[in-house]
Amino acid sequence: MSEPFRTTRRVEFADTDMAGIAHFANFFRWMEAAEVDFLASRGLNVALRWEGRPVGFPRVSAACDFVKPVTFMDEIEIAVRVERVGGKSVTYGFEFSKGGEAVARGRVTSVCCLVLPDGGIEAIEIPEALRAKLLV
Amino acid sequence: MSEPFRTTRRVEFADTDMAGIAHFANFFRWMEAAEVDFLASRGLNVALRWEGRPVGFPRVSAACDFVKPVTFMDEIEIAVRVERVGGKSVTYGFEFSKGGEAVARGRVTSVCCLVLPDGGIEAIEIPEALRAKLLV
Amino acid sequence: MSEPFRTTRRVEFADTDMAGIAHFANFFRWMEAAEVDFLASRGLNVALRWEGRPVGFPRVSAACDFVKPVTFMDEIEIAVRVERVGGKSVTYGFEFSKGGEAVARGRVTSVCCLVLPDGGIEAIEIPEALRAKLLV
Amino acid sequence: MSEPFRTTRRVEFADTDMAGIAHFANFFRWMEAAEVDFLASRGLNVALRWEGRPVGFPRVSAACDFVKPVTFMDEIEIAVRVERVGGKSVTYGFEFSKGGEAVARGRVTSVCCLVLPDGGIEAIEIPEALRAKLLV
Repeated sequence: MSEPFRTTRRVEFADTDMAGIAHFANFFRWMEAAEVDFLASRGLNVALRWEGRPVGFPRVSAACDFVKPVTFMDEIEIAVRVERVGGKSVTYGFEFSKGGEAVARGRVTSVCCLVLPDGGIEAIEIPEALRAKLLV
Repeated sequence: MSEPFRTTRRVEFADTDMAGIAHFANFFRWMEAAEVDFLASRGLNVALRWEGRPVGFPRVSAACDFVKPVTFMDEIEIAVRVERVGGKSVTYGFEFSKGGEAVARGRVTSVCCLVLPDGGIEAIEIPEALRAKLLV
Repeated sequence: MSEPFRTTRRVEFADTDMAGIAHFANFFRWMEAAEVDFLASRGLNVALRWEGRPVGFPRVSAACDFVKPVTFMDEIEIAVRVERVGGKSVTYGFEFSKGGEAVARGRVTSVCCLVLPDGGIEAIEIPEALRAKLLV
Repeated sequence: MSEPFRTTRRVEFADTDMAGIAHFANFFRWMEAAEVDFLASRGLNVALRWEGRPVGFPRVSAACDFVKPVTFMDEIEIAVRVERVGGKSVTYGFEFSKGGEAVARGRVTSVCCLVLPDGGIEAIEIPEALRAKLLV
């Protein structure tokens, strides 16, 4: 498997909760932001167009295991891997670490969708050009 | 001045920060939700249409003074008043209290805007029918 | 299996994202709030004490499958089940529905921990009195 | 007046709302994070100690005027100025801009407080060493 894409972020005061640690729901926001950074590194973004029509990647599942708490001002490294590119979906794996030690592991599956004129969405096969960039 | 509209909400765990109190940014989300409740009580909503075109009320300013901290599970009462209805804008005042004691006071000014087909917005005079309901 | 505990909540404007739907990270906040409501219905809360010492339930994993998007002002019903009470952990299952139709399904596992005087935590066997209330 | 401290941040997907713009409450989180960056640049942090006792700076007021909306992936520059250092309080001014154009202006006032052993807080005169660093 190729090397994962790596990005970092710092835990902000507003991310913490009364237990004194980063609230667990933030890890899901952080996975999304890391995915955006990863896509940008491949020349992609989350507001793509395909044959002139807008394409999006809504999440169909998200999961995270929390190994160790992180706290205010912690610098977190996030490693992003494309775990699987299916016909219509892509699954990312995320490893969160701090100072080289794992703090959480997550996984998100998104489905490639056309955004219809009425705002609805329709799952489609991932266009080949896009698939090629995800599989680099 | 007429009686204010009243609504309540409870401080959730995710609203707290490492200081053990509700994070101050939540008060702005709470004002917005209280405004939605208020508008609903007047038969209005934040996704109005006017002569077939969508109308929105983006905020142009928001402010809050924090008198006393609130903590997890606190039940907060929010009193909403229309402080001023201008030509194109409406200003709301909010009083947050707990057990009858003031904990915060806020103010938000929104501007009546047409949402243009390209997603842009254009400030317009508040339609009379809408103004009438705000001034009840 | 006994009937699940049920609670509801409404999608707020601040919960939405530019795709026009509730942002997926909110489902994790909503699971937490539903768990708090469930515990309260059993006479428990998230800031328990055991033999005079504070006890907490940090999450060790959280997952959610998203079936259908929900949007601003939607009223969501959340059904909470205790799926498993282990020696030191408890797993909750959550069913989110709207108008009787499933919109998401989630699962959260929390571990019973003593909060140590230095702020650290130590996993402990779930006290019997507490276990009894979870298993009602 | 001396040059303001400058920091930047990018609008994330989770920051947006169904109007397609960054939700206004985020500007308050952003001011807080910019204040943390500013304090760090002066060798200070938000979890200070004074004569062995913890000191905090809870907000007593926060306000923001919104000039232009910002959207997903926008790179925002935030200029932070110490507007006033009073006996017990400090007021910061924030200018948000994008590509050199103002998008919002905010102001936050915090009060210097001792954190008491029972978790309560007590406003105190800002210690001289700290005041000196704020006034550089």
